[in-house]
Amino acid sequence: METEQTRKILAGDVRVAARLMRGIEDNLPEATVELQNLYKYTGKAYIVGVTGAPGAGKSTLLDVLISTFRKRKLKIGVVAVDPTSPFSGGALLGDRIRMSKHANDKNVFIRSLASRGWTGGLARATLSIIHVLDAMGKDIILVEAMGSGQGEVDISHLADTTLLVLSPGMGDEIQMMKAGILETADVFVINKADKEGAEGLKIQVEQMLDLIPLKENSWKPVVLQAQAINGRGIEEITGAILEHKQYLISSGGIGRRCIDRARLELSEAIEYSLQLNVNKILNSENFKNLAIALAERRIDASTAAEQVLNNVFTIKKSHKSTRRSKTT
Amino acid sequence: METEQTRKILAGDVRVAARLMRGIEDNLPEATVELQNLYKYTGKAYIVGVTGAPGAGKSTLLDVLISTFRKRKLKIGVVAVDPTSPFSGGALLGDRIRMSKHANDKNVFIRSLASRGWTGGLARATLSIIHVLDAMGKDIILVEAMGSGQGEVDISHLADTTLLVLSPGMGDEIQMMKAGILETADVFVINKADKEGAEGLKIQVEQMLDLIPLKENSWKPVVLQAQAINGRGIEEITGAILEHKQYLISSGGIGRRCIDRARLELSEAIEYSLQLNVNKILNSENFKNLAIALAERRIDASTAAEQVLNNVFTIKKSHKSTRRSKTT
Repeated sequence: METEQTRKILAGDVRVAARLMRGIEDNLPEATVELQNLYKYTGKAYIVGVTGAPGAGKSTLLDVLISTFRKRKLKIGVVAVDPTSPFSGGALLGDRIRMSKHANDKNVFIRSLASRGWTGGLARATLSIIHVLDAMGKDIILVEAMGSGQGEVDISHLADTTLLVLSPGMGDEIQMMKAGILETADVFVINKADKEGAEGLKIQVEQMLDLIPLKENSWKPVVLQAQAINGRGIEEITGAILEHKQYLISSGGIGRRCIDRARLELSEAIEYSLQLNVNKILNSENFKNLAIALAERRIDASTAAEQVLNNVFTIKKSHKSTRRSKTT
Repeated sequence: METEQTRKILAGDVRVAARLMRGIEDNLPEATVELQNLYKYTGKAYIVGVTGAPGAGKSTLLDVLISTFRKRKLKIGVVAVDPTSPFSGGALLGDRIRMSKHANDKNVFIRSLASRGWTGGLARATLSIIHVLDAMGKDIILVEAMGSGQGEVDISHLADTTLLVLSPGMGDEIQMMKAGILETADVFVINKADKEGAEGLKIQVEQMLDLIPLKENSWKPVVLQAQAINGRGIEEITGAILEHKQYLISSGGIGRRCIDRARLELSEAIEYSLQLNVNKILNSENFKNLAIALAERRIDASTAAEQVLNNVFTIKKSHKSTRRSKTT
């Protein structure tokens, strides 16, 4: 079903898209319906994750990456889910700030997501925003995320290409980084390359990468030096991203990443749908009464839980047994 | 239904109780059945939570508290859910160590719970262990938990009386503590009272407590100094615990705590039951096929999630609308 709203978003209407994004953040049912309409028009954009510890220079790098992609006439969307980022700083304060440099470029759309107090699943919201940008016709969607710490979105599950931004003076922190991050990044950027220790950091990263066994024909992560602040090394980074994209296309890896992303999205949607029902349950009279019965030892917890759930769901018999009737 | 196992646990059989506790940790279905049998015999024990940062001296305090309660002929159970505690240290290593001092006292039963990699809900397991100890006839059950940091069990939701153990040199950390902990503790213990700063810490805690408005007739938290290592101040702490117990009984608060605990247990049981189904879902063929359909844009995420869930659950109509038919 194609609505007026759908048509406007497909035409790149910034105002209508922004309204839908607010609806997504607020978990409005209308937003879910509109996403359903848009979904079939998505899947064209290339998703680049930019991750790294606060202070590594992710935002500055993003800024110059946008400029470089724009020179190539590519349309850009940005989702910032890093609460420490200047991009999303505004989100914490309840309003949106956009990078002034690209504010007047209608082919750049920047959106920040507040990651605190989020109930509907941050990865779920991020993917939904990506879909809107994708439907708007953005060629490249940059996702800025902290990529460390609990409760953060693991960007490598969302992105086609993952950039890890490091800077000198963070040598000790690398040791403490989850091995997972090193293993999932496709391009490493040693930012602030003019600073002392940049060369050592590069060697350290390369040594750590050497320890990770590479499968045959798999992508060998690239380690690049840059000075985002004055644009040095950015062409090489853009080149590496596009090269990795080319690799994913020729190796068929892009399809696998797409399916991984779909799995993540589906499991998040399932969790969310169940959570809505659980919230209903916890506020129900039935729950309150059974808690009292439990306190008075008139029932036990697992029996009570079963009763509450049976009041809401029927668990289908075919699913209780292990795959007997597959004829549904 | 009273089984041989039930009878043995009610008689305080340590070997049978320990086996059931292992079953609880391993999420064995038999353990759930046995807990159902035991449940009606529980609800007699008094639950005391002991929380505080690592290094504050929780374990030493527990040790002397056990001795003091034993002098009063009370039977004691201990559940240690603090991964940094010497009590539960063994749990992390896969085996159990017991405090040697009480190892030969059959009226003291100590159990540690490994809190890492726990899938079935730590609060749920803790409550189940508490029930077993309760059924065994323990008068007081001490629960040691870190009480700060994410993923920890919030002890104040489980306990009748909550002790917060602090020690000098932690002044800065108090500022950083969640206000919640200060508001939920009933007894504050300034341990290592011989150390410099103990008096200052006591004043600091009292000042912070003064900022929290007290309802009429509500319990005024007690701040006590102690030296757990040589038993100084322990009688006062034991006295404060029993005084708080008396207060809860006379004010009727004990019934409310019991219902709160039942609510927590019921919601944990519901979450666990749903989680089991979600895990099944994520491993199903149906899920995998729908993820591919999603990746190929043949379906959208919310519709796919609905399809997966409908394959497993039927959400009852009466629950979809807001309370119309209450005649079930």
